[in-house]
Amino acid sequence: MTDYEKLKAQFREIGYLNRTIALLDWDHETYLPAKGVDYRADQQAFLSGMAHNRLVGIKVKELIEACESDQANLNTHEQINIREWRKDYDRSVKLPTEFVERFEKTCSLAKASWAEARRENKFEIFSNHLEQIIDLSRQKADYYGYEQTAYDALMDVYEPGCTTESLSPVFADLKKSIVDWLPEAIETTGDITEAFLKDDYPIAGQIKLNEIISRALEFDFESGRIDATTHPFCTELGPHDVRLTTRYEADDFTVSLYSVLHEAGHGLYEQGFKSEHAGTPMAEAVSLGIHESQSRLWENKVGRAPAFWNDWHSIACEHLPALKRFTPEQLTKAVNRVSPSFIRVEADEVTYDLHIILRYELEKALIAGDLHVKDIPGVWNEQFKGMFGIEVPDDTQGCLQDIHWSMGGFGYFPTYSLGNLNSAQLYDSAQKALGPRLGDLQNGNYHGLLGWLRTNVHQFGKQYPPAELMQNATGKPTQPDYHWSYLKDRFSSMG
Amino acid sequence: MTDYEKLKAQFREIGYLNRTIALLDWDHETYLPAKGVDYRADQQAFLSGMAHNRLVGIKVKELIEACESDQANLNTHEQINIREWRKDYDRSVKLPTEFVERFEKTCSLAKASWAEARRENKFEIFSNHLEQIIDLSRQKADYYGYEQTAYDALMDVYEPGCTTESLSPVFADLKKSIVDWLPEAIETTGDITEAFLKDDYPIAGQIKLNEIISRALEFDFESGRIDATTHPFCTELGPHDVRLTTRYEADDFTVSLYSVLHEAGHGLYEQGFKSEHAGTPMAEAVSLGIHESQSRLWENKVGRAPAFWNDWHSIACEHLPALKRFTPEQLTKAVNRVSPSFIRVEADEVTYDLHIILRYELEKALIAGDLHVKDIPGVWNEQFKGMFGIEVPDDTQGCLQDIHWSMGGFGYFPTYSLGNLNSAQLYDSAQKALGPRLGDLQNGNYHGLLGWLRTNVHQFGKQYPPAELMQNATGKPTQPDYHWSYLKDRFSSMG
Repeated sequence: MTDYEKLKAQFREIGYLNRTIALLDWDHETYLPAKGVDYRADQQAFLSGMAHNRLVGIKVKELIEACESDQANLNTHEQINIREWRKDYDRSVKLPTEFVERFEKTCSLAKASWAEARRENKFEIFSNHLEQIIDLSRQKADYYGYEQTAYDALMDVYEPGCTTESLSPVFADLKKSIVDWLPEAIETTGDITEAFLKDDYPIAGQIKLNEIISRALEFDFESGRIDATTHPFCTELGPHDVRLTTRYEADDFTVSLYSVLHEAGHGLYEQGFKSEHAGTPMAEAVSLGIHESQSRLWENKVGRAPAFWNDWHSIACEHLPALKRFTPEQLTKAVNRVSPSFIRVEADEVTYDLHIILRYELEKALIAGDLHVKDIPGVWNEQFKGMFGIEVPDDTQGCLQDIHWSMGGFGYFPTYSLGNLNSAQLYDSAQKALGPRLGDLQNGNYHGLLGWLRTNVHQFGKQYPPAELMQNATGKPTQPDYHWSYLKDRFSSMG
Repeated sequence: MTDYEKLKAQFREIGYLNRTIALLDWDHETYLPAKGVDYRADQQAFLSGMAHNRLVGIKVKELIEACESDQANLNTHEQINIREWRKDYDRSVKLPTEFVERFEKTCSLAKASWAEARRENKFEIFSNHLEQIIDLSRQKADYYGYEQTAYDALMDVYEPGCTTESLSPVFADLKKSIVDWLPEAIETTGDITEAFLKDDYPIAGQIKLNEIISRALEFDFESGRIDATTHPFCTELGPHDVRLTTRYEADDFTVSLYSVLHEAGHGLYEQGFKSEHAGTPMAEAVSLGIHESQSRLWENKVGRAPAFWNDWHSIACEHLPALKRFTPEQLTKAVNRVSPSFIRVEADEVTYDLHIILRYELEKALIAGDLHVKDIPGVWNEQFKGMFGIEVPDDTQGCLQDIHWSMGGFGYFPTYSLGNLNSAQLYDSAQKALGPRLGDLQNGNYHGLLGWLRTNVHQFGKQYPPAELMQNATGKPTQPDYHWSYLKDRFSSMG
């Protein structure tokens, strides 16, 4: 065995452990009996420790070094894998074990206090823990190292190469455009009430319809499945095992359907890596901003387009007869209803990015020390009013709504909006490239679009950093114009 | 930490790994996508290797030795745990790694050849592999060591302390009684045809009914669940996570219901260990013969008794309306139908043990070298004719029907019949002890019976060897009389 093969075998074994941890987690969310959670937490912590120890062990280090000094004998893909394994290794060893344990312990306590604070609508319950997490996040950034701001180091974990310097003007631009346009956008679907679609949608029918549509998207059910959870997600448990989850509500089929379209977008990306790269970074997602571009493309660009309900209305009626009282046009308008609201995860496509930009700006200021924890509620509510034009009634519907901070996830939020921008930009290029073939979409045939994404995004895994991947696929790095045009087009056609 | 505490921590970690492997296995049987099986097999092999390496490592060895030389400072339960951990350790180190790998590889090939042989109805396809497995099983017995016969060493893995010397006369006795009585037993349900119960039983109704009855048995759904698989089983994935599986057939509710009663019996045992012993042998099943006594007690002694359908008929009709055309008496008779058949897993309670005794006698002879593999089909068919009075039409319905030999499971079969004997004997003692309180059963209230089993069987884990456990609970070691009386009583009341 060459050193490269030995290293690959090491990471194959680390992969076994990480996928096992992912299964423990999937099972936790789907089927674990209520009283099984404590044991499961200990079990997961134990296996995480094992996976970590293997990664930071001397064997991996020596083999990476050996491969690095033998680059000449490695092909391009192998060199890329070495580069990425080095990054994984460095990131793991940069954080002292003692620090990792302190971080995890703090988050575990913070999560509980956040849940209580949200339930009781009392920010003070959470604020001490949040201060500790911010402090630890700054330390984490210092351990990782950065060129300009500590926040850059935190974003880099989720979105390699992303900096506040490049992102801030993009977000500022987008924010202004949306805020100015918002009153007009609201008008476009002004005749649709919140309860417009509420009816009786049997869950068995929802399951069937979701499956039929996922198959049409070419999600491979021999290499994947769909289960039910409170919070929908997608997880990869092996090279041929990609699992989506969704939530069912008996009076609102859109909850499960659009979650499935979203998660299937993630799943198609995971199913789209080349099988010869299985077990290496060449078969791993490059960033959350690219991952999210895939989910939002299928959920929004495809799933909320007028063509979608033209294609699917009659089939949907077979499984959910209550849909017969709507026309395809009404359904399209209803699933695109614009209405400013307090909760991010319930937001429409127009206001969604405002929720993200608000969080991005607060996070930047918190990590930089320009904003104090105690001032969060006031600043949140003031900024929110400025963007959405409505008054936040309480912190539970304001700064306490998201779990991310309690998990130490600073730097995560911006990737959601990057997903929106990337998705519009990729969809635009796909439309131009496919030309008349994109007309396939009119018949619920997504083969051409999926093929374009496979060729231009999926197959590369971690080969190119996100900015380069976007440049190669669309001719430009990520920018807000495409998303902005898409929003204007979509909603001007609605009225 | 004392040495005992250190050792306990070691086994707690080995337990994390073993339970993780059990989850990988459960998921394999329940939800794993078709194309995910290859990766899963590698993943399981890797984790099994890890668990094995931890068990045979120097740390465990030294700690066991330290504890053994410090017995005076350990309480009874701790001493028992040390004794059992020593057995686990010894059994693992006695087999050289090279031998274990050869055994596993041989079985993996044998399993495939067995499946083909069964499909093609050609014993020769399997016979070479079977010869290798028998040879390896003899070697395994030699590694383990034994006093009288090699087969004893193999049975001891599943049923500690069980020997052919003690078991053979019991089985011979039982065989003669059943064979002589069989024609009469068949008469008792002679008016029930095989298709008697066939009807339309919607699976949703079966699921609901199974759950209601499992709850009445006090199976704890906060510490367990039921899923669907091809072959029903019960697995413990943590101290509060016991999972049953069953198989649904839309025209025969008895398949899923009686599997659930059977597996719930296993599950109640697993849920019945004392929580303070979690993670130690004091909270582990002592043997398969005791485990199977619990499953058969609930499936047969309770579930096929006349009281059962008196209690449940009206509730069952709510969920499975097709049952309205039967009386409770008809249902009781139908689920007790005696009819000699070729396939063990489809056998009735009267003929079941004959299937086992046939296999037991062949296994003994094969391991002793008194029977050659090539002669199996002839001997099987001849013996079968002698016991059941019917001619085996082909090997697929004869000596090729079970997977056990291809998995190297020599010594496993007898535990099924031990389960029958133990179950009748325990049920008899419970009846005597509970007296009128067992009348609770008449109202679908199983609290008294479960309490007796908790007190006399479950709570002890591996404290007593099976023979001693039976002696303590019933005043006698396992013997055939109780099972025999039970069968006679049950079926004489049927006519």
